[in-house]
Amino acid sequence: MFSLLKSICKKNMSTATGAKVTQPKWWKPEMDLSKKSVLKVYNTLTRSKEEFIPRSGTKEVSWYSCGPTVYDASHMGHARNYVSIDINRRILQDYFGYNINFVQNVTDIDDKIILRARQNHLFEEYVKSIDGDISNDVISKIESSLFQYIEKNLKQSSIKSINDFENWYKQVDVESMKNEDPKFPMHITAVQNAIKALNDPSSQDFFNLVKDVLVPVLDKELGSSINHPEIFRKLPAYWEHQYDNDMAKLNVLPPNVTTRVSEYVPEIIEFVEKIISNGYAYAADDGSVYFDTQNFDTSKDHSYAKCQPWNKGHLDLINDAEGSLSNFSNTNGKKSPSDFALWKASKPGEPEWESPWGKGRPGWHIECSVMASDILGQNIDIHSGGIDLAFPHHDNELAQSEAHFDNNQWINYFLHTGHLHIEGQKMSKSLKNFITIDEALKMYSARQLRLAFASVQWNNQLDFKESLINEVRSTETSFNNFFANVRALNNDYINIISQPNGFVSKKLGSLERQLLEDFKIAQEKVDIAFCDNLATPQALKALSDLVTLTNTYISSVGNDIRIEPIISICKFITKIFGIIGFPVRSDGLGWENADSSNAANGSSVEETVMPYVQCLSKFRDIVRSLSIEKANYVEFLKLTDQIRDDDLLKLNIALDDRNGQSALIKFLTDNEKNEIIKNNEEKLAREQEKLKKKLEQQKLKEAKENERMEKAKVSPQEMFKTSEYTEWDEQGLPTKDKDGNEVTKSMTKKLKKQWEQQKKLHEEYLSKL
Amino acid sequence: MFSLLKSICKKNMSTATGAKVTQPKWWKPEMDLSKKSVLKVYNTLTRSKEEFIPRSGTKEVSWYSCGPTVYDASHMGHARNYVSIDINRRILQDYFGYNINFVQNVTDIDDKIILRARQNHLFEEYVKSIDGDISNDVISKIESSLFQYIEKNLKQSSIKSINDFENWYKQVDVESMKNEDPKFPMHITAVQNAIKALNDPSSQDFFNLVKDVLVPVLDKELGSSINHPEIFRKLPAYWEHQYDNDMAKLNVLPPNVTTRVSEYVPEIIEFVEKIISNGYAYAADDGSVYFDTQNFDTSKDHSYAKCQPWNKGHLDLINDAEGSLSNFSNTNGKKSPSDFALWKASKPGEPEWESPWGKGRPGWHIECSVMASDILGQNIDIHSGGIDLAFPHHDNELAQSEAHFDNNQWINYFLHTGHLHIEGQKMSKSLKNFITIDEALKMYSARQLRLAFASVQWNNQLDFKESLINEVRSTETSFNNFFANVRALNNDYINIISQPNGFVSKKLGSLERQLLEDFKIAQEKVDIAFCDNLATPQALKALSDLVTLTNTYISSVGNDIRIEPIISICKFITKIFGIIGFPVRSDGLGWENADSSNAANGSSVEETVMPYVQCLSKFRDIVRSLSIEKANYVEFLKLTDQIRDDDLLKLNIALDDRNGQSALIKFLTDNEKNEIIKNNEEKLAREQEKLKKKLEQQKLKEAKENERMEKAKVSPQEMFKTSEYTEWDEQGLPTKDKDGNEVTKSMTKKLKKQWEQQKKLHEEYLSKL
Repeated sequence: MFSLLKSICKKNMSTATGAKVTQPKWWKPEMDLSKKSVLKVYNTLTRSKEEFIPRSGTKEVSWYSCGPTVYDASHMGHARNYVSIDINRRILQDYFGYNINFVQNVTDIDDKIILRARQNHLFEEYVKSIDGDISNDVISKIESSLFQYIEKNLKQSSIKSINDFENWYKQVDVESMKNEDPKFPMHITAVQNAIKALNDPSSQDFFNLVKDVLVPVLDKELGSSINHPEIFRKLPAYWEHQYDNDMAKLNVLPPNVTTRVSEYVPEIIEFVEKIISNGYAYAADDGSVYFDTQNFDTSKDHSYAKCQPWNKGHLDLINDAEGSLSNFSNTNGKKSPSDFALWKASKPGEPEWESPWGKGRPGWHIECSVMASDILGQNIDIHSGGIDLAFPHHDNELAQSEAHFDNNQWINYFLHTGHLHIEGQKMSKSLKNFITIDEALKMYSARQLRLAFASVQWNNQLDFKESLINEVRSTETSFNNFFANVRALNNDYINIISQPNGFVSKKLGSLERQLLEDFKIAQEKVDIAFCDNLATPQALKALSDLVTLTNTYISSVGNDIRIEPIISICKFITKIFGIIGFPVRSDGLGWENADSSNAANGSSVEETVMPYVQCLSKFRDIVRSLSIEKANYVEFLKLTDQIRDDDLLKLNIALDDRNGQSALIKFLTDNEKNEIIKNNEEKLAREQEKLKKKLEQQKLKEAKENERMEKAKVSPQEMFKTSEYTEWDEQGLPTKDKDGNEVTKSMTKKLKKQWEQQKKLHEEYLSKL
Repeated sequence: MFSLLKSICKKNMSTATGAKVTQPKWWKPEMDLSKKSVLKVYNTLTRSKEEFIPRSGTKEVSWYSCGPTVYDASHMGHARNYVSIDINRRILQDYFGYNINFVQNVTDIDDKIILRARQNHLFEEYVKSIDGDISNDVISKIESSLFQYIEKNLKQSSIKSINDFENWYKQVDVESMKNEDPKFPMHITAVQNAIKALNDPSSQDFFNLVKDVLVPVLDKELGSSINHPEIFRKLPAYWEHQYDNDMAKLNVLPPNVTTRVSEYVPEIIEFVEKIISNGYAYAADDGSVYFDTQNFDTSKDHSYAKCQPWNKGHLDLINDAEGSLSNFSNTNGKKSPSDFALWKASKPGEPEWESPWGKGRPGWHIECSVMASDILGQNIDIHSGGIDLAFPHHDNELAQSEAHFDNNQWINYFLHTGHLHIEGQKMSKSLKNFITIDEALKMYSARQLRLAFASVQWNNQLDFKESLINEVRSTETSFNNFFANVRALNNDYINIISQPNGFVSKKLGSLERQLLEDFKIAQEKVDIAFCDNLATPQALKALSDLVTLTNTYISSVGNDIRIEPIISICKFITKIFGIIGFPVRSDGLGWENADSSNAANGSSVEETVMPYVQCLSKFRDIVRSLSIEKANYVEFLKLTDQIRDDDLLKLNIALDDRNGQSALIKFLTDNEKNEIIKNNEEKLAREQEKLKKKLEQQKLKEAKENERMEKAKVSPQEMFKTSEYTEWDEQGLPTKDKDGNEVTKSMTKKLKKQWEQQKKLHEEYLSKL
């Protein structure tokens, strides 16, 4: 169907008058270059806004995003990172028109996952083994666990009884302890929960209350016995699905490609081997492989810690990233404390894969290097992640990849989203200001959260506080009112022009010209904002100001309103909201209704109306079965046929009545509907034909009966009194025929029979009189 | 709410180890310039594809589109032009990211409109005056009109009777006459219709049949008496609204600004004055103003007929554009036959405005120059229109505007859409292949029409023929199947991962890598196509090929399918379809259902489900009223209460039952719903409280009755046989008290009364035994 491009040149250039036959000069337009916008993004690798130059020259952009470690519910920090990155991705894709290949990993092998999966498993097994019988043995095990917990986490080795603890806690200065250790309140809660359980062993909550103190002991005792891969897969699979659900609720676009570490172990081993052979990594005696930071950093082609060089050697950060199951002793085989694990020898109780260095598992940082490179290659346009991952995670990634490819630059633009704080404080479980995405979505809509994130520059720290939420709510209301108002004005306009002789002036006056000028300026401001490091706060400010100016126009112009500039403005605002990831109406006049977004979001009419049709069909089912049950409810039965064959069919719905079951609801295409209507009409025609025949037969029967009754009026005495006979007996039976001859015996017998029949018939007649 | 951009620079650059504290070198990416895409468009002004350089430097683009002359229904030629321009506009806006100020005019002053409006008015008035009484006068007027029509249009002055005509027509060679005058069959039809009417004056259709021959006569007789502005406004207002409706059905974006000639007369006069003062126009004696083509074309700064210089002096084209009400005599005051009217002196029966040259009205071409310049200025990026308008209309526009501004280039890019043919022939009413948009939309969906237009290069001739439609249908089916299949696969995937332990491998194999590579190539092809003169046929071809490759992947991979690349591809295809103006699902997985597009298009759930709820509510109304009518149908009444108070309320719908009226359907917010549920619960509680009290009272009453019946068992003879008395009479009435004293008279009276009561009570007891 695709016709080729053909020139529509007019070949014949002769003219009627003969003058100037060549086409006159065309002046190539000159662009006002002073205003030309150039997209710049803040690049951690230079700590400056750099012009964005994708390698391809085409619209192709490669992007690797650091994905979740799936061992627990995602929280507001995740939401901030992934929504902000989603906004950036959408602006690049839908405003600047790039085709982005967006790859994101799932970390499903990790110390935290291993510990959590193992401990959950051990706890579940333990509870199952107790089977509700809380014996003295159980109690003393928990008491012992409690004091071990206190010794380890509160550093109080002298506490040997609940009394000891209570006395000690009375004298503690909680505030100063909190300053010393932010997790102090969390540990106190764990201890107090256990005490509560020990004081009331019959509590329904018993095991939940003791879990925190019990689990480390169970793990110490039995952790090394756990090795079934299923145990280490179930937990991350569950939380990956929850993460996906959270992202869907936040309207975050899914990646083009998701990579899981667990599916990449062979590639990781190969990648590590290459780094070793390039001289930037070494295997330790225990079967772990470490990256040689010194060797790499001192080589003339490479630099270690490109993102945050000032953090080099920062052991707190380095060891934290190595994971809690690591060996932090001086004899761990590392050449330098700054070196980090590419491959970890697996200890008992950890999942393991065969490798050239023995049974082990991947280090944390290596996965991103391997998976990003596998899909996107050795020079990637964009890498993104939260700023807390910049060192050492991302710096290690850069080092690994550049060591592997032995090239000078693996990532061209490193985008780091800023921290999230809650009411001025870092979010943490111990501060009790920890909010999961699920909890957040109970308090705020996905739109409000996205609006909150978009109102702060993506690479700045965001303080999620009361005043921000209030501002978001007021912004939302102002846009909501604007959209509703524009739709109302538009409906009003359509209503007027749809009337006969409906006519509305369209001519622009000075107010409309000013409004269109303001519109142009707002469009420029949005463009400048997006070009300036994807600055959504400035873009939103421009839209917000435009709403104010439009509202002013609407209120100042009165009834003489011009709808077109308002619609243009509303559609532009809606388009920009759509671009930054707010679900919008397909008529371009505002946000999708938040209430209805689930129903309307890409769902068909079928999905949307189904609950209503089910409700109707159920009601009809009951009316129908009651009507069948009681024979005198025929008018209801007719009604149920009518709603099926007429009303619902018109709405392209067929109900198939089924015995002893609810009717089957079918959504029909127009063709299917017409087929059914045709069949119904044919059926009706057949029934009418049948009825017609029946009526005809009935009529025939009636005519015969009438004939019979006419005959019945004659008494048997009179029936033979015709000219055929000349004499009769007293009963009226003929004795002589018309010639005066005697009626024969056989004839008399025959006539007598007829006489008897007529007698009967006549008696019937008389009885009916 | 808009926080300012803050740098997240880490100020302190000292490191733990002291090594390299400055940030390592960043290598600025180098773009592969060989692949860099540049948008080019076919410019009539050079008859070549030129790089598109908008003047602004920002994303602002000015665009003037030649709009409709509104005097009749829009047809397929209009559809082709406006849909193709809409596609181009959308690609520039939504693919290349320009902010387009799209201005389009409505020509509501024009010779065709004047004639049609006047003639319609005269015809209506005539029919009204006849009032159904077809007298001999009427007949002879029509006969006379008929022969005038024949003389004028068939050039047969000798035909003076119907017989004459029949005899002449028998000998005519229709084919050769058609070749001579394409309108020949149309005129024959007009004559034959009139003859039919004259042969049967009682026909319902009488006046419609004679209209074509009668109207020119009425116009000649009375046309000059028509001058009421309302008559000349009603017709274009009606057809403008119809045009808007047609465009909405075709999903053509409305302009940002619509300008109407009737609203621009003062500006037109001013504009013409400036052209005169610049020396490029002159007023003729009759009060018309003409453009001086010679003077303009011979000036060193200007050229006349920049689009189609070979058509200069082409009098057929020039005079046709001057309009049928023009004076074509040699004494019309034009210096050269190539000159054209900027301002036309109004003759009787034409609308008129005061001007420096007397009463008159604007010429055709001047409106576009004035209105486009008024909104978009003296140098406009794009002007578009159908290729049939290139000369003289657009060439005259260019001349007028460049004469007015005395500049060298008014329009930078002139985009002309190609002709539309129907089955290889020019569309015309006389060829009976004339299709209005309304008719087309009865045969094809808006999607099919857009697909047909997008499948041919916008500036090429388009032949709307059977084979094209078949190709469109097969393309549509193939995309439809693809979208449906992807959605089904996606649902299946979601279903699997939503199950406990649901786990699907995401790892890319070689087939997926190939598919992603194919995807990238398709994206590049689409980009190349759009850059190459907005070549939608090539873009659609790339998408179509991508569907084939994806289908091949799906069928070859079996159960081990990876959903992510398929979803990415489907979303990209959907995005491109959305960009070229096909309504798409908000989940990005394909077209909006064509059947449901009206329902789903930006409508709320409320609008979508309303017909279904109405159907349900009507059914319930009938069941309810039947149940009230017949007191024994209580179970149905209960049912109607239940569906209202339970099922529908859960779906946020309230039904307010009304006496003698159908129930009022209300869609509720959650708050409103909860309020009703609360009220219903309180009502229920009150009713239960009432019932409880009633039951208690009943119990009390029963207890009293039991007590009474217990008392009733005693006969009056026995009732006083207690230790209080010592003697009784035969009726059992006491005569002596416990001390042996006689019972007093007053006491006896009292006891007798009690005795009588007990007698009654006991009798009641005995009767019940």
